[in-house]
Order: sequence, then C-alpha cells, then structure tokens
Amino acid sequence: MGKNLLLNAFKKTTYQLAGHGVRNINILKKALEEIDDELESDIYGNGMVIEDFEKKMAEYLGKESAVFFPSGTMAQQIALRIWCDRKGIKRVAYHPLCHLEIHEEDGLKELHHIETILLADKDKVIQLDDVVHLEEEVSCLLLELPQREIGGQLPEYKTLEDISTYCRKNGIKLHLDGARLYEILPYYQKTAAEICELFDSVYISFYKGIGGVAGAILAGENIFTEESKVWKRRHGGDLISLYPYILSAEYFFNLRIAKMEQYFNEARELAELFNQCYAISTTPKQPVSNMFHVHFELQREKLEPILAEIYVATGIGITSNLKETSMDTCSFELSIGDRYEKIPKENLRQLFQLLDEKCTI
Amino acid sequence: MGKNLLLNAFKKTTYQLAGHGVRNINILKKALEEIDDELESDIYGNGMVIEDFEKKMAEYLGKESAVFFPSGTMAQQIALRIWCDRKGIKRVAYHPLCHLEIHEEDGLKELHHIETILLADKDKVIQLDDVVHLEEEVSCLLLELPQREIGGQLPEYKTLEDISTYCRKNGIKLHLDGARLYEILPYYQKTAAEICELFDSVYISFYKGIGGVAGAILAGENIFTEESKVWKRRHGGDLISLYPYILSAEYFFNLRIAKMEQYFNEARELAELFNQCYAISTTPKQPVSNMFHVHFELQREKLEPILAEIYVATGIGITSNLKETSMDTCSFELSIGDRYEKIPKENLRQLFQLLDEKCTI
Repeated sequence: MGKNLLLNAFKKTTYQLAGHGVRNINILKKALEEIDDELESDIYGNGMVIEDFEKKMAEYLGKESAVFFPSGTMAQQIALRIWCDRKGIKRVAYHPLCHLEIHEEDGLKELHHIETILLADKDKVIQLDDVVHLEEEVSCLLLELPQREIGGQLPEYKTLEDISTYCRKNGIKLHLDGARLYEILPYYQKTAAEICELFDSVYISFYKGIGGVAGAILAGENIFTEESKVWKRRHGGDLISLYPYILSAEYFFNLRIAKMEQYFNEARELAELFNQCYAISTTPKQPVSNMFHVHFELQREKLEPILAEIYVATGIGITSNLKETSMDTCSFELSIGDRYEKIPKENLRQLFQLLDEKCTI
Repeated sequence: MGKNLLLNAFKKTTYQLAGHGVRNINILKKALEEIDDELESDIYGNGMVIEDFEKKMAEYLGKESAVFFPSGTMAQQIALRIWCDRKGIKRVAYHPLCHLEIHEEDGLKELHHIETILLADKDKVIQLDDVVHLEEEVSCLLLELPQREIGGQLPEYKTLEDISTYCRKNGIKLHLDGARLYEILPYYQKTAAEICELFDSVYISFYKGIGGVAGAILAGENIFTEESKVWKRRHGGDLISLYPYILSAEYFFNLRIAKMEQYFNEARELAELFNQCYAISTTPKQPVSNMFHVHFELQREKLEPILAEIYVATGIGITSNLKETSMDTCSFELSIGDRYEKIPKENLRQLFQLLDEKCTI
C-alpha cells in the first residue's frame, strides 16, 4: 500500500524532477514525423538507414567503425567475448555492480562461459591500484563511466589515462560501458572521441540521457566490429529491420546531445538543494554527470506519506518509488532530463522548504 | 552487370508478383497511426502493450502462454536450449536446410553448445521413418512448416500426427518453426491451435506473410515461457521497449490473417501459369502455402535480359534476382502477398504468353 501511495501521488503531479517524460508511443511518432515515408528499411544490418548512422556514431566516438545493436546487454557480452577469444583467456574484470554482473541473468557466464573478477569495493570506483593488483590474467577490463549503481561516480581523468596506459602495456583490452557517456563529457571537459581514445571498444546507449526508444552502438576497429556482426547474428540481434530504434536514436541524439551541459549543471544545483535539507544527502555530493542518488535518514514507511503530501502541496513529483537501504534509511536514483527545466522556481523553492521541514527523524 | 540489369528493370515495374510491397518506413507509420499517443511503452517485458499481445497470441496458438521476442533466431535457439537442459542431453534433430543450420552463424552451437542431427535428404521433408531411425538420443525435434528452402513443402497431416505421437511416447520434445504457420492453414484446413497442439513449443513470425516490421512469438506451457524470458534477457533481447515491433505485428496480423486463403489460392493459380510455360516449372508443383520456387531450364545470364525485356513490356516484375542452380538452370523464391491481386489480368496473360515464347532453351 505504501508503495502505491507514493506512485499514485507521483502520477498526479504536474512537474517531475527527473527524466524527459513518460515513455509513450508519442516518442517514436515524433521521431518518425519528419522522415520520408518512402525511406527504405535497413535489411539485416545493411542499407542507408543503418550504415549512415553507424558511420556518424563511429565519427562521434573517434573509432574506425560502429555497429548498431538492439541492446547494450547484447553489445557488451559480444565485446568481451571477442576480446577473450582474441587472447585465448576466458576471463574479464569489472566492477562488482557492473550491469553484466547484476542485471543480465548471467548471460556472460551462461552463454559465453566467461569468468569474471570483481574489482574494487562496491561503493567505490575502480582505481589503477585495483588493476595493477589483479591476481589472475584477464583479457579485458570493463569500466563503466559513470558507475551508475553508486550514484554515477567517476574516477579522476588522470586515473583513466593511467589505467589505459597500464592495460595497453600489459595486453589487457579496455572496454567502455558508456551507457551514460554523453552525460559525463561536461564534467571531464572532453569530447567523446577523446575519452574513447583510451578504450579499445566502446558501447553507448540511446535511451538514457538521449531519451530514445532503445538501441545501442558498439564501436572499435573494423576487424572488431566485423566480428561483432557475426555474434550479433548468433545472438538473434541481426533483425531484418532495426530502423525504429535507429531513427529515434538519431532524432533524440540530435535533439539532446547539446543539452548535456545543462543537465549536468541542473544536477549540481539540485543536489545542493537536497544536501541543504535536514536528514537528506546525495551521492556523489557534487554530481559529476546528470545523475545522483538521494539518501534519506528516515524509514521508508515513514517517508512515503510525507513525500506524497509534499507532491500534492507543490505539484512536483520527486520519485515514484523508494529503495529501503536499511531499517532506518532509504534512497532513490535521480537523472536530470528535459523535465527539470519546466518546474517553476517558486514551486521548487517551496518543495525544498517543505522537505527540510517535514523530513524530521 | 547482369544482376543489376534485372534489379534495375524490376525496380521500374508498376506491378510485382510477390510480397506486400517495399519495406519502407510507411509500414511502421501506418501501424502507429491509430494508436493513442499516450499509450505507454512496455518496460523490459512488462506492461499492457506486450502482455495483451502475448495473451492474444497464446490464445490464437492454443498455448498456455507466449513471449514476444525481437527475432526468431533468438526465440528458437532458446526453445531448443530449454528442452536440452530439461532432458540433460545437448542434442537436437532438424532438417539439413533448417534456419538454425544455415542462416544463424551457428549460434546454437557457438552459444549453446548444442549438437545437431540433420534429418532427411535436403530435398525432402522429414518423415516419421527419419525420426524412428534416429541413431542417437535427442532432446528435441524441430519441424519447419512449410520447409522454406525447398519451396515451402509440407508433409501429410497424418505424418505430423504420427511424428507427434512418436515423440511424446519417446520423450522427444517437438518444436515448431512456424515462421510461415498462418500460410499453411488453408492447405491443412486446420486452425493454428489444432496444428500447435501437436507441438510442445511454437515459434511464429510477423514479417513474412503478416508483413510487419520484425518480431516473433514463442509459445508453450507457462513453465517453458517463463524460462524463455530468463534466456531472452541473457541474449540481450529483453529490450526496454519492444512496442515498435509489437504494435506493427498486431496491426498487420489483424489486417492480413484472414487473407491467407486468398494468398494460397493465388499461389496455386500462379504456379499453374508458370508450369504451363516451356522450360519453366515450380516446386512444389502445386503449392501448399503462399510460396513456391520457380525453376528455369536456362542459363542465368541468358535469362536475365529476357526477363528484363518482359518487365518493360508488361510492367510486371517477376523477381529482382535469380539464383544459379547449375550451369544451365536458375531459380527464385516467390511468396504471394498483397501485390498479386493488384495486377490486371490482361497484363498477367501477356506476361505468361511472353515467358512461354521467349524462354526457349
């Protein structure tokens, strides 16, 4: 009941802090509106629709070539498989909260029989030291930038450079889980290509910060991407038509790629507002992308009716659900998109005043 | 040059014998036109859009439940994997020209490590005798109805019943590759559910006879489909949004499911016209679905300019490419869709008169 209370109150709000909006059919319709009806479908990975977009993304990432995939799950397993086959060692290293470890039903192990080494404490990002002290040989190290499950944290840029140099020297391929790559460019003050230069293979997504329907790109050298196409077919991802995802990816990429700095600044502003409230804090304290986690020093069951009441009073929805992190604490993830800019400053001021007043321990 | 000659001539024709039309963006736009903009996306396999369609297809197939997949390649590998895991024997049997054997880059072997036994001569359909004389134990037998690569041939219905009975007695799961299941119902004079009753698991497709954008359904008992969802995630097929495929599948299913008898009758009529021509024949002689192969007793290089000329004279495109089957013969595959009914009878009469006259050995 508590969860429905919050969700229901959230659904009735006029404004919301996070995201671009409801994921409805209109997103696809909007993306297709300006497209010529006669434009021909891609056919099993070939055709202008897919080839042009792959080329455009390869250039954006500064890689020789790129392949469009229906999902990141598929793209990343395949990247790691190729690097393992290349070196003849079926072992990779990544963070304990890596997407492949916790969200993919162990596809990497069940389908590809690849062993994994979990690097770093789960609450920290991977450092050079973790890589240097690897006890077993691995074919590939996967870095997720930002590390989503801990609020979107990043290592120093220097650390990335050092890890890249170390991996190149030691024959370890470096793969980037760049599901939120665009979102970190304002913090690092780098281009996508500059960051990707440190990596041998890169995956990016089109439905997080970009807000498309679905889909992913895997990029690297030609020989790597060509091999990835064979595995894409094996996985059942070489669909006769991927254009619904490609066209929407391109549309929303063009629409939002220049807004990443705004999202980043808004995330910093918003995190500061949360951190000024009693019993509320964020991770990271200063966001390094458009996302962060918000922690409450309150029982979830106690907090939910308070939030629901604040939603009604201010018209602003903060979150639709809370995750219990201990008996007395709870949290939620927040990613800034197009919705935040639509909130009147006066409502926002009222929101944080109420939060500070009502969230008492 | 020869191939381009035929393709270019084909592209200029007003009418075409095969298919529903060009695979362009308009197909998706049409399917979305009547859909409410506010309809919410499916989210990782959940939500009204996907659940309602899965329920509808389960009912149509007479199975307990159904799962929507981005592709048949993914759905079928997963079906066979589940049956192999269930029995503890990683071996299945299917036809030498099975889709999994020739079009999937050996995904079944590379990802699932499943051995295959090829049953029957490649020019024939699988008979009960082939199954009875299997020399090694298998977990599953896959039957493709109709057998596409040999012109869409079918066994007698009695044979299907006998194979099903035999498999059930002998602990062999029977899986249906029903990529073209709707298309054979008029010949067998059965419902989809009646045919599927003979099988433990069933895959159907939405972009062949139905003419949708892409997508597949895998159906069976609850325990089977639930397990298939875990593998769908492992394969990278559990996308955040599959609705572009689902909505178009549903739209074109509703539009065309009642037309399968018409396509079947037209295929029979058209095959007869081909068979009356000198040096031309079809496989099967009498189609058992909407498809068949057309064989020419002519060198491809000799035939191409003849066909191109006939396309210009009649305005009808027969095929855009020919497959060389020997030094002196060639062929192509033909599947009837919405285009055939639009051809004026007079043009068709002229077409076959010219074919009969010009295709001389």
